[in-house]
Amino acid sequence: MPGEFEFIDKYLAPLAGPEGLSLKDDASCIASPVGFDLVVTKDVLNEGIHFRSDDPINSVAHKALAVNVSDCVSKGARPTYYWIGLSLPKNTDETWMSGFAEGLKHAQARYGCSLSGGDTTRTNGPLSISLTLIGLVDTGKMLKRSGARPGDGIYVTGCLGDAAIGLECVRKNMTGTEQLVSAFQKPHPPLEFGIQLPGLATAAADISDGLIADCGHIARESGVSMRIAQDQIPVSEEALGVLGDNPEYWPKIWSGGDDYQIIFTAPVNTENEFEEISKQCKTLVTKIGEVTTGSDVQLLDHQGQIVQVTSGGYEHF
Amino acid sequence: MPGEFEFIDKYLAPLAGPEGLSLKDDASCIASPVGFDLVVTKDVLNEGIHFRSDDPINSVAHKALAVNVSDCVSKGARPTYYWIGLSLPKNTDETWMSGFAEGLKHAQARYGCSLSGGDTTRTNGPLSISLTLIGLVDTGKMLKRSGARPGDGIYVTGCLGDAAIGLECVRKNMTGTEQLVSAFQKPHPPLEFGIQLPGLATAAADISDGLIADCGHIARESGVSMRIAQDQIPVSEEALGVLGDNPEYWPKIWSGGDDYQIIFTAPVNTENEFEEISKQCKTLVTKIGEVTTGSDVQLLDHQGQIVQVTSGGYEHF
Repeated sequence: MPGEFEFIDKYLAPLAGPEGLSLKDDASCIASPVGFDLVVTKDVLNEGIHFRSDDPINSVAHKALAVNVSDCVSKGARPTYYWIGLSLPKNTDETWMSGFAEGLKHAQARYGCSLSGGDTTRTNGPLSISLTLIGLVDTGKMLKRSGARPGDGIYVTGCLGDAAIGLECVRKNMTGTEQLVSAFQKPHPPLEFGIQLPGLATAAADISDGLIADCGHIARESGVSMRIAQDQIPVSEEALGVLGDNPEYWPKIWSGGDDYQIIFTAPVNTENEFEEISKQCKTLVTKIGEVTTGSDVQLLDHQGQIVQVTSGGYEHF
Repeated sequence: MPGEFEFIDKYLAPLAGPEGLSLKDDASCIASPVGFDLVVTKDVLNEGIHFRSDDPINSVAHKALAVNVSDCVSKGARPTYYWIGLSLPKNTDETWMSGFAEGLKHAQARYGCSLSGGDTTRTNGPLSISLTLIGLVDTGKMLKRSGARPGDGIYVTGCLGDAAIGLECVRKNMTGTEQLVSAFQKPHPPLEFGIQLPGLATAAADISDGLIADCGHIARESGVSMRIAQDQIPVSEEALGVLGDNPEYWPKIWSGGDDYQIIFTAPVNTENEFEEISKQCKTLVTKIGEVTTGSDVQLLDHQGQIVQVTSGGYEHF
């Protein structure tokens, strides 16, 4: 297999922006972006935990960047620079390296950012990928989990549950579920929509731990109650197909995690603006509930009865 | 053991600066530091590779930050913000968590930076720590590996080889070698000295892969030759003590790695200024050679003969 410096020179250096100094120095150098705040995210993905050993390499590379892009755009920031920390198992070969670089190349082109540096090391354990992303947002405009106010509507982008159901489809070798599997392996956070939210939304977060758990984060940090109408949660045709034969998967829609969509709150009189942006970005946006006074999250069925949520969402340990 | 959110709230949130939003959001937010460039480093440390399973936890936490501080200050930048990505094995208990946080607390106080965010996850493998650090340097003043010019002197801070010999001392259970072992487990990069180098040094790097290897990086990026006088390399009393009985360790002085000192080049007429800063910071600075035209690194003995270097320094794989 190629050595560390050969891997960097041959596969990673072509992905570097000017701030990365061709990945030939001890650090990268970013000019202070006047008029902007820097929004920084860091997510670690471990083999066997966040992705499967037999997931395609280029999807794994894509996902490592996409989950950070998801955090970034849910804060209203445009992804700009990223750093990658790789812990490679002993059996890592050149096919892996070129596949990984290819996946990163496509992902960074899609999300408009460049590789700025990082570290490649050896591990005695499974593959681990740590990624740090910096995005830019107009000064003072970063969206936070705090900020939701009673009376605001609660909105989500995309459809929920596809990734969590997709993971079950892979595990059980179900056929005809490519789109759901792809939602798990290769998520696509709604970048163009997210970066237009500052100034409109009052609070926002990405949905990575599951809708109810991420609603809980907003409720706690904003000091409000979030009421979600179960039958308003957008579910894809593909997910409904699987749910028909497997109704036990329904809780994955609101508790599954790995959605990498945006949940946000906003005054209901701004709905026209969201609809306009939604059309322009071709991003589905759905109102699923409302913010009230209180301090909890309630999932309500079509009769207004509280649905017991068995899992509060994903915790890493 | 405590869950993910309890670990973050109880042990990590107290280390967060205001930019970290109490570690309760999806990202951190840094105001653009007008007049400065941001120097970004990222180093990953894996158990069994970069530290030993029985190294004290607080030393491991210290080292994770210190190796990044080393990169940062060798570029002339002052460490300011850091993010930590933790992959924790299943047996991680609360004693580990509190020891790790304690080590980070002391290290960040020493180096003057604050925890700004990160990610805590589970791994099926050994402990892995990924750390990203941002330092600030006056606009345009970051020191690079390129910039060394024929006629410049070559200088290093501190003594070299202590860490590499210290690792052997641990492995062989040698007694009375605490200072060398500490150099391996708990390195102290010369922060105060490093941040005064911009404007004086022509090129700089930290010594992490071994003196000869890191000289090679500067030689290659600067397009020059580096001639090192073997008998000018600063060696500690403690290392000399071990070398007396173990002369086979001598090559660790120039090829061992893990020194986390600074190597820099500068015009010889600036030596008085370095001596002044050296005294003020209580940092040993030694001239070990000179830059010439050419494109290689030569280690010369006291008769001017070329010493064959068997190992070109550390590569991760």
